[in-house]
Amino acid sequence: MQAIHQRMAARSLVSGDKLPSLRAFATTMQVSTSTVVEAYERLAAQGLIRSRPGAGYFVAGPSTAAPMPLTLAAMEPRLDRAIDPLWISRQSLEADAATLKPGCGWLPAAWLAEGGIRQALRTLARKGDASLAEYGTPLGLLPLRQLLSRRMAEHGIEAPPDHIVLTESGTQAIDMVCRLLISPGDVVLVDDPCYFNFHALLRAHRAKVVGVPYTPTGPDLEAFAKVLSEHQPRLYITNSAIHNPTGATLSPVTAHRVLKLAEQAGMTIVEDDIFGDFEHTPTPRLAAYDGLERVVYIGSFSKTLSAAARTGFIAARPDWIASLTDLKIATTFGGGRLNAELVYRVLSDGSYRKHMEGLRLRLARAMPEVSKQLQGLGIVPWLEPQAGMFLWCRLPEGLDASAIAQDALAHNVVLAPGNAFSLAQSSRGFLRFNVAQSLDPRVGEVLRQVLKRQTEKG
Amino acid sequence: MQAIHQRMAARSLVSGDKLPSLRAFATTMQVSTSTVVEAYERLAAQGLIRSRPGAGYFVAGPSTAAPMPLTLAAMEPRLDRAIDPLWISRQSLEADAATLKPGCGWLPAAWLAEGGIRQALRTLARKGDASLAEYGTPLGLLPLRQLLSRRMAEHGIEAPPDHIVLTESGTQAIDMVCRLLISPGDVVLVDDPCYFNFHALLRAHRAKVVGVPYTPTGPDLEAFAKVLSEHQPRLYITNSAIHNPTGATLSPVTAHRVLKLAEQAGMTIVEDDIFGDFEHTPTPRLAAYDGLERVVYIGSFSKTLSAAARTGFIAARPDWIASLTDLKIATTFGGGRLNAELVYRVLSDGSYRKHMEGLRLRLARAMPEVSKQLQGLGIVPWLEPQAGMFLWCRLPEGLDASAIAQDALAHNVVLAPGNAFSLAQSSRGFLRFNVAQSLDPRVGEVLRQVLKRQTEKG
Repeated sequence: MQAIHQRMAARSLVSGDKLPSLRAFATTMQVSTSTVVEAYERLAAQGLIRSRPGAGYFVAGPSTAAPMPLTLAAMEPRLDRAIDPLWISRQSLEADAATLKPGCGWLPAAWLAEGGIRQALRTLARKGDASLAEYGTPLGLLPLRQLLSRRMAEHGIEAPPDHIVLTESGTQAIDMVCRLLISPGDVVLVDDPCYFNFHALLRAHRAKVVGVPYTPTGPDLEAFAKVLSEHQPRLYITNSAIHNPTGATLSPVTAHRVLKLAEQAGMTIVEDDIFGDFEHTPTPRLAAYDGLERVVYIGSFSKTLSAAARTGFIAARPDWIASLTDLKIATTFGGGRLNAELVYRVLSDGSYRKHMEGLRLRLARAMPEVSKQLQGLGIVPWLEPQAGMFLWCRLPEGLDASAIAQDALAHNVVLAPGNAFSLAQSSRGFLRFNVAQSLDPRVGEVLRQVLKRQTEKG
Repeated sequence: MQAIHQRMAARSLVSGDKLPSLRAFATTMQVSTSTVVEAYERLAAQGLIRSRPGAGYFVAGPSTAAPMPLTLAAMEPRLDRAIDPLWISRQSLEADAATLKPGCGWLPAAWLAEGGIRQALRTLARKGDASLAEYGTPLGLLPLRQLLSRRMAEHGIEAPPDHIVLTESGTQAIDMVCRLLISPGDVVLVDDPCYFNFHALLRAHRAKVVGVPYTPTGPDLEAFAKVLSEHQPRLYITNSAIHNPTGATLSPVTAHRVLKLAEQAGMTIVEDDIFGDFEHTPTPRLAAYDGLERVVYIGSFSKTLSAAARTGFIAARPDWIASLTDLKIATTFGGGRLNAELVYRVLSDGSYRKHMEGLRLRLARAMPEVSKQLQGLGIVPWLEPQAGMFLWCRLPEGLDASAIAQDALAHNVVLAPGNAFSLAQSSRGFLRFNVAQSLDPRVGEVLRQVLKRQTEKG
């Protein structure tokens, strides 16, 4: 059933097409004919296919079939079959407590601000009034926006509170900006490699995605300029402070050049800065150079404070903020007020600053430790990041990261194979490690066994 | 600036077009020429228009202009200019404590489950562990899904926990279903009148919306059948238990007929049941008749429990749940775990059941009281709803609800004018009242004055 669903979603089987014969499909799928009969009968019961006695089964017409849903995993462009952009997310989100997650994109709960959230919950239970039951205002909690405005000013970004709209997460913030600025078929530029969820999100927007190779100081400028002139992308989505997955930092020279090229091409930049608070020394942001003319700045606290009480935000031009606010009402109505109240309390009572100091220190210790351990296995970091949790590593020659990830998963270890991050599928030999999730000695042990098995196979 | 922005967003001014001359536009807008000069200069600074010395101002070309954002308020079909679908939401969400909101779509905070939320916050602060900092699983908190599954069974809806995906709100649930099932240009059927945010949401999806007149027992079946054969809609979005804005209840006969027509036409139905818990006597749901084959069932607790700690859900066919879960990861990542934990606690500790009993009683007392008061002003309910908070009322002959709403707003009273709910703009003489928000004697006082002024004008 799933195989037929996928073919229909990918439009390789469309209305009126004859399905493979029972016998032929049984052979293809390596199942019995009676299994195929049962699957076809169920699809017929769902109205997706119709049986014409004596002629076989046919895909039902559009006027009588159920509508064909948008299937992210089946949409073009096809990435590595086994490892689609949602593979790592799903594995990480579904993992039970016994599973190790060195490939996971976030910190263990114990590293986050549980204490601060606990305290904020108590305060809200005591003092909260309307904040416990009322919708938020369209832009979102004013004191939090004022605080965000001051924090951005520390990075040289001028954004008054009414140029900021709160969202339910950083992911939702990018989603809303895409809804505002791109139409189906528009070209969007991403780094290669980049955060795999950008690929999944852009598929949901039916955008055409183009990648530009990422270097240790930012996108490859020659390739960047070429893509701009060849494809006229509407948007470029990137992380500037600490790049996911590479941990690289955009250099001021590259930042300036990227902005200039974007200006010439009339392209908007979405600067996703959700890892910015991990930096030891603040580096400049595209939004600071640009003054929020051409750059939309996005942040959240899901990676630093809590992934359970989430709040994201968008800082942008006031006319775009007005349209984004309409979109926010239309698609989510009042937003998550309670989460905003919680995040505001933790940010404003000083506990966040203290928490982040401890967190940066802890990561700074874990980074060289994990790096050394991996190098002992022949897994070599592409660069030593200045901060953050990610190590982007090259596998020993000839090994395939996807095969290694599948093998490791069978041993309860979730890895992050490189091609999930790469549109061009050029990162077959890379894995992304989260150093905070890689300290358990069992990680090294399983990796050693998997590398051995895969080397023998290869 | 706003006027030009709107024309560009509505594509009545496109790349290369000449803008109106300074003098002509100043006359049109009834402002001074220097105001227009300033506006054009600012638009030029934003790169949206260009000055060609001696020739005038022109809309900048697509390759150098900033991308044109999707502007919900300016998109076709144009509704009543002053009262677009977002008007009531914005006014209600932005109202300060001094503003009365008889047109508002939710209950006052004091009527909601503040006590239950307060208690749940304390419990979470004490007992919470990973729930304070970790992402939720892709489908969302299992104990809550199990509880929802049992609650649906009470309404005859068979939905095991893995046929349910949690969302951040009921609105987001509908948004996700639209993303899954409709493409830009698809036809979607709504009731006329219907919840105004359906119009805004469907504009964001670039859907073509068609309305069918609503009767006291459900949609007008003759018109419904006609629209199905003429427009082949993909989706029908409706409330079945207590209809917003009319308070009507779908009759079993109409429900059965609607399902049969939907089946013949291959149309999916989204049953938005966020007001269901207000019913005194449960009525059957479309999802119960259909068995979640053709019906997607949506619920939330924002209207009954808290609009600050929100959680919605979708119950649907398992293959659609799988695709919806991918979409959820791509567009919001892990979802709002803390809110789900809070809602679960209030629902499971018995306080929700008790809260709802009190709430239904309170509404049952307010309904006839407000109805009587309005009738004293010549404002007559279309029907006396069996339950819920809404009264859909006809104004005295000849009065325009939009003009009345604008007038009342100037006196700090937010009303809900009928045409915001009507695609055909056929509800010019109607207002929706929320009985819980209409008990303040000042509401009647302001209404009396406004009616007097508008009658004299008319």
